[in-house]
Amino acid sequence: MTKILIIGAGRSTVSLIDYLLKNSSTYDWKITVADVDIKLAQEKVIGQPNGEAISFDIKNEEKRRAIIAEHDFIISMLPAFMHGDVARDCVEFGKHMATASYVSADMLALDKEAKRKNIILLNECGLDPGIDHASAMKVIDEIKHQGGEIISFKSYCGGLVAPESNDNPWGYKFSWNPRNVIIAGQGTAQYLLNGELKFTPYNRLFTQHDVIEMEGYGKFDAYANRDSIGYIEVYGLSNIKTMVRGTLRQHGYCKAWNVFVKLGLTDDSSKITHTNKLTFSSLLASFLPPAKGDLKTRLKSFMANDWDSEIEHQLEYLELFSDKKIEMAEGTPAQLLQSLLEEKWKLKSNDKDMIVMQHEFEYSLPGKNNQKLNSSLVVIGKDQNHTGMALTVGMPLAITVKNFLTKQFNLNGVQIPTKKEIYLPLLKELEENNIIFSEKIVS
Amino acid sequence: MTKILIIGAGRSTVSLIDYLLKNSSTYDWKITVADVDIKLAQEKVIGQPNGEAISFDIKNEEKRRAIIAEHDFIISMLPAFMHGDVARDCVEFGKHMATASYVSADMLALDKEAKRKNIILLNECGLDPGIDHASAMKVIDEIKHQGGEIISFKSYCGGLVAPESNDNPWGYKFSWNPRNVIIAGQGTAQYLLNGELKFTPYNRLFTQHDVIEMEGYGKFDAYANRDSIGYIEVYGLSNIKTMVRGTLRQHGYCKAWNVFVKLGLTDDSSKITHTNKLTFSSLLASFLPPAKGDLKTRLKSFMANDWDSEIEHQLEYLELFSDKKIEMAEGTPAQLLQSLLEEKWKLKSNDKDMIVMQHEFEYSLPGKNNQKLNSSLVVIGKDQNHTGMALTVGMPLAITVKNFLTKQFNLNGVQIPTKKEIYLPLLKELEENNIIFSEKIVS
Repeated sequence: MTKILIIGAGRSTVSLIDYLLKNSSTYDWKITVADVDIKLAQEKVIGQPNGEAISFDIKNEEKRRAIIAEHDFIISMLPAFMHGDVARDCVEFGKHMATASYVSADMLALDKEAKRKNIILLNECGLDPGIDHASAMKVIDEIKHQGGEIISFKSYCGGLVAPESNDNPWGYKFSWNPRNVIIAGQGTAQYLLNGELKFTPYNRLFTQHDVIEMEGYGKFDAYANRDSIGYIEVYGLSNIKTMVRGTLRQHGYCKAWNVFVKLGLTDDSSKITHTNKLTFSSLLASFLPPAKGDLKTRLKSFMANDWDSEIEHQLEYLELFSDKKIEMAEGTPAQLLQSLLEEKWKLKSNDKDMIVMQHEFEYSLPGKNNQKLNSSLVVIGKDQNHTGMALTVGMPLAITVKNFLTKQFNLNGVQIPTKKEIYLPLLKELEENNIIFSEKIVS
Repeated sequence: MTKILIIGAGRSTVSLIDYLLKNSSTYDWKITVADVDIKLAQEKVIGQPNGEAISFDIKNEEKRRAIIAEHDFIISMLPAFMHGDVARDCVEFGKHMATASYVSADMLALDKEAKRKNIILLNECGLDPGIDHASAMKVIDEIKHQGGEIISFKSYCGGLVAPESNDNPWGYKFSWNPRNVIIAGQGTAQYLLNGELKFTPYNRLFTQHDVIEMEGYGKFDAYANRDSIGYIEVYGLSNIKTMVRGTLRQHGYCKAWNVFVKLGLTDDSSKITHTNKLTFSSLLASFLPPAKGDLKTRLKSFMANDWDSEIEHQLEYLELFSDKKIEMAEGTPAQLLQSLLEEKWKLKSNDKDMIVMQHEFEYSLPGKNNQKLNSSLVVIGKDQNHTGMALTVGMPLAITVKNFLTKQFNLNGVQIPTKKEIYLPLLKELEENNIIFSEKIVS
């Protein structure tokens, strides 16, 4: 019997846990789901003979180590910054581990020791990062196999709301951790554009965005995401001229979000106090430079050319010009904004979310004109709980863990799903589960 | 014999250690200076019978606790984020502690236990925070004593370069930790202006600055500093309409620094790699939005109305448009910028730094017109090592520790120098050491 431990039972774990429980009898697995909130864990395993829920606080070092030591494979669904402690324990006790998060410096530091002990530290195995790597590498390897060379690679992904559930002017509802949406993009985005390194700081990220088109779904805003340059080597694209990974939002979102960035409402580094004495309109006024006139006039004049009537409508929808009271007694500007957006952008019980991913390749083939190819994925969720987000984050992780445990591939150390032996069976099984890319030559 | 431990022997500690050693025989003190770099500690106590240097790594918990346990009063000159561990040890072992840093949440959490054990956790006892509190409270208490009420309080401070050593167009050289200068102001500045709460985010901090005048020294730029609102209660100014604490730079500095902020060169949250393949001009180009034309033309067009020939001169002085190579292999944009500025803004051996502080009060007195009063301080350093910065950070801390140990005041828990029994003898002894405020009714 193989004992699998899943740490964290939040909203992205539904499909992961379902898949593992469904396959548990076939493969003789015991599945333990651990969360600080035992109820959250219990909900996920109710009525499942091979499932068990336990209460688990990552900060309790002694208990953490004891529990990790008695399992064989640990899947951490905790926030990314918490993986380090789990990973160190896993390596110490010789346990395999998987996450859907980016490879951190903490994780990378364990690579050598993990290899020595022949254990795998599988990362970036969710949606983005995850499915994007697998599906992109399939196209890249195919083009290379034909003797071609990739000139440009742009890869975009977004967790949005399905058209049939889209009833707000932002085209956005929360299908995952709201906090990550509010602070998305903070830092410096790094990418390669026409052979030149480009660094875009947060303060300009939402004004320097691209607009892409996706067949059947219209236009989307795309802003650059973290460090794309590091993936040039990972993907084996040393001669590439353009390499951009980006985040998608509905067209029109970025220019409105830019108002929050420019005002300072997304800062998450300093706390404002006594905020329950404020309304959202007085908060807005406090962030505006001193000026005469009513609030909306001041904001228009402050935003100057970065303002239009659509933005005004989006902000009005959030009741930002109203006397709506702030409930929180204190918080960072980002936390105050989050408290408002959690109410306004809530995924209702029958709402469906939508995952959109598009890779745009430009490449040369021997003796031919340059080609353009788009590889696109759309996944619509079922409802508030069975979201496309939970499905596309959880399935690749579950499938890859299963493929590893059933010896369909044999790797150790820090891995991400860019190798053929990982991505081929993964993409095949995703297709069987209706997570299907369509590839199309576009010119 | 009283055993005093000073943790950290960096450039701000010279005057602190000198003062304590000079008084050590009189008061029967033994002074231990501890630093990771034992040489730095040894330099500070050489030839001093009551002084001892030890090697000390704050991360070595066992040794840290052992050393703290065998002293009576601990002065932490470590970077602010490291005070927490020291403070917890001090409270556990019943040792008094002092710092020149802002009261942190960590420190505040220890207040109750420190009071119970009758030990003092003295903070904000350097220059700014420190001398500013003492000198401001003296004026505030005097006005209140006359039955007056403060309407507006603006307090500015800067560590600059003395006019006679000012040979660069920024009017700035480093007299303290360069890193803190590069990332200064990140977060949200909070203050009160004409009765309205004002929040200024980092992205606008250097465009929304004030310009102040200081008799005999000309104009200075002043940008708002951290959270001024919290001091309304601390200073007992509940009816005040304007409350701003700010940082001073030479006039013209802020609009040039704004170029770095707008470009994204002060971001300290994400690392750029392979930077030793870049020059400073290619780094600049990578941060600019894609556009045609030479670098300077692109930058001018990017900065639009926030550009003038003076800024151009300031950036040219830094060789930012040149093929000067970046030496660091990787780093955050802020670290790359710091590497350049440390070379360009170095305080040379005979250079003198200059501390400038000015409080601007507006107040009412019964039956009189509103009054304006400025309280100003200028301190010129001796040389590269005996800086005005080290003097004004170290002296108030040393004097207040001496006054506490000699029972000139008796307080416990978390304290800052706003109480009469602390600030009166402190300001008196600072005056004897030529740190003298001049007060002047200005209208």
